[in-house]
Amino acid sequence: MHIVYKSEPERGRIWQRWLAEHSPDIQLHLWPETGDPEQVEALVAWQPPADIPALFPRLKLLFSVGAGADQFDFSALPPDLPVIRMIEPGLTQGMVEYVTFAVLGLHRDMPRYFHQQHQQQWLPHAAIPAGQRRVGVMGLGKLGQAALAQLVALGFDCAGWSRTPRECPGVRCWHGADQLADFLAHSEILVCLLPLTDTTQGLLNQSLFSQLPHGAALVQAGRGPQLNHDDLLRALEGGQLRAAVIDVTDPEPLPPGHPFWHHPAIWLTPHIASQTQNESAIAALLENLRRYQRGEPLHGEIDRSRGY
Amino acid sequence: MHIVYKSEPERGRIWQRWLAEHSPDIQLHLWPETGDPEQVEALVAWQPPADIPALFPRLKLLFSVGAGADQFDFSALPPDLPVIRMIEPGLTQGMVEYVTFAVLGLHRDMPRYFHQQHQQQWLPHAAIPAGQRRVGVMGLGKLGQAALAQLVALGFDCAGWSRTPRECPGVRCWHGADQLADFLAHSEILVCLLPLTDTTQGLLNQSLFSQLPHGAALVQAGRGPQLNHDDLLRALEGGQLRAAVIDVTDPEPLPPGHPFWHHPAIWLTPHIASQTQNESAIAALLENLRRYQRGEPLHGEIDRSRGY
Repeated sequence: MHIVYKSEPERGRIWQRWLAEHSPDIQLHLWPETGDPEQVEALVAWQPPADIPALFPRLKLLFSVGAGADQFDFSALPPDLPVIRMIEPGLTQGMVEYVTFAVLGLHRDMPRYFHQQHQQQWLPHAAIPAGQRRVGVMGLGKLGQAALAQLVALGFDCAGWSRTPRECPGVRCWHGADQLADFLAHSEILVCLLPLTDTTQGLLNQSLFSQLPHGAALVQAGRGPQLNHDDLLRALEGGQLRAAVIDVTDPEPLPPGHPFWHHPAIWLTPHIASQTQNESAIAALLENLRRYQRGEPLHGEIDRSRGY
Repeated sequence: MHIVYKSEPERGRIWQRWLAEHSPDIQLHLWPETGDPEQVEALVAWQPPADIPALFPRLKLLFSVGAGADQFDFSALPPDLPVIRMIEPGLTQGMVEYVTFAVLGLHRDMPRYFHQQHQQQWLPHAAIPAGQRRVGVMGLGKLGQAALAQLVALGFDCAGWSRTPRECPGVRCWHGADQLADFLAHSEILVCLLPLTDTTQGLLNQSLFSQLPHGAALVQAGRGPQLNHDDLLRALEGGQLRAAVIDVTDPEPLPPGHPFWHHPAIWLTPHIASQTQNESAIAALLENLRRYQRGEPLHGEIDRSRGY
């Protein structure tokens, strides 16, 4: 079986060596090398090349190397080509770590303490235990469920919201547009792990912030275009929000001089919450290729009608 | 039963109301009010008054309001007066939250990312999963064991060290001076939760840092006098340590201009890792008073020969 890989070259070389050792029947070509294009059955990419049908006439599968596939221009892809996003334990673990770190930091007022440190101010504030802190996670797929399991283990009072009904142990779950307001009113710390769709674009805006408890905090680890930057700044200025941890923005990177860089109540990280881990990712990719060969459904296939 | 409380007045009033409601047979006097000193059986204090035998001739118990009792001058206390430190779920929960936050932050290179933010630099770095990160906790009492349970749940490769042998599920435990070097060589992130004793005073010094893996990180949530500030700064400068999260210092607060305030690789918090929670603490105190009345051993009684 022949596959073409088009993304970070270093990861490609690691995957090539790994497959040569574990599954020599699968040959990974590193773009722009493709072998015989007629034989290529799968493409693994962050950004696929233009005109896939002409390049790889027998392509059967398109894999994203990331947790999402919203970077793909679906209108430029063959309509019946299955698109599969990456579901692998390294990505999930990374997100759990990031969200746990961010929620604990906001729960314990750490942005305020770090700002005090810069002011040379030694000033303790009263803390409440996790059991009295209401945390809400938007997006209850693999990542959201795994993050909530950890937050529940830490004792937080947890809620979840998703487009369609979901159940998470120990978590009060809401769903759909009708129940969004109830969920938001509960969320003193709001974590966004939603995929990017027409509905979630611009969702984190003034209207949403105004439905959170006064002085709430935000963790944005979804996708950049979901967050309205100006609205966040206004909500921080007015005290409706007290702090935010932001991993994704639009554009990325942020331009020089953007207010997020120097805002004392914003922690900004460069889209590192969840990074594909080479070893666990190639094992997950191999598992999906074997499922394809056995005619079984793949993990993480995108439903184009809903966009994730 | 009559008790005198001498610490933060606000907490005293909350405890007084709580006891009046739950245990009206126990009367809490808020210092300097003491009722009839002859009737006072227990004193609850951060700092006890001088000359206890003269003030309270029939005192049977001295409770610390904090997790430690090292703030007491034992030489000024009656030698046979039992001294009890606070063990309550709120204190433990607070420490678990702080240590988990700090370890995750160091694991994911957050001090570096926050420094980059100040430099307006958008630069991702490769991350390793928690399973490949070796974390070592010094001090395996209630707090250390609870923190380790959470770190194990997050998937970290965990080790522990204590003066005497201890066992923690999923944790490789070392003990005693002989095994300290092996433990340190394992600890890429070192967490200090040790009590303050003659042996632990100044323990976090150049000699100890040099036994950690190069580029290790430190979480200091023990007691201030355990850490040699100059040695920490030198270890950070030379790269032996890459970052530190410091909650306790000597003195507290740090003086203006101290290098910790502005060090890009140091996160400094004002002794807030673990704060006695009013409600759970008074419940724990009541439980201990009942044990005393029933003639049972108390939770958290200090062994003066070892100092904790």
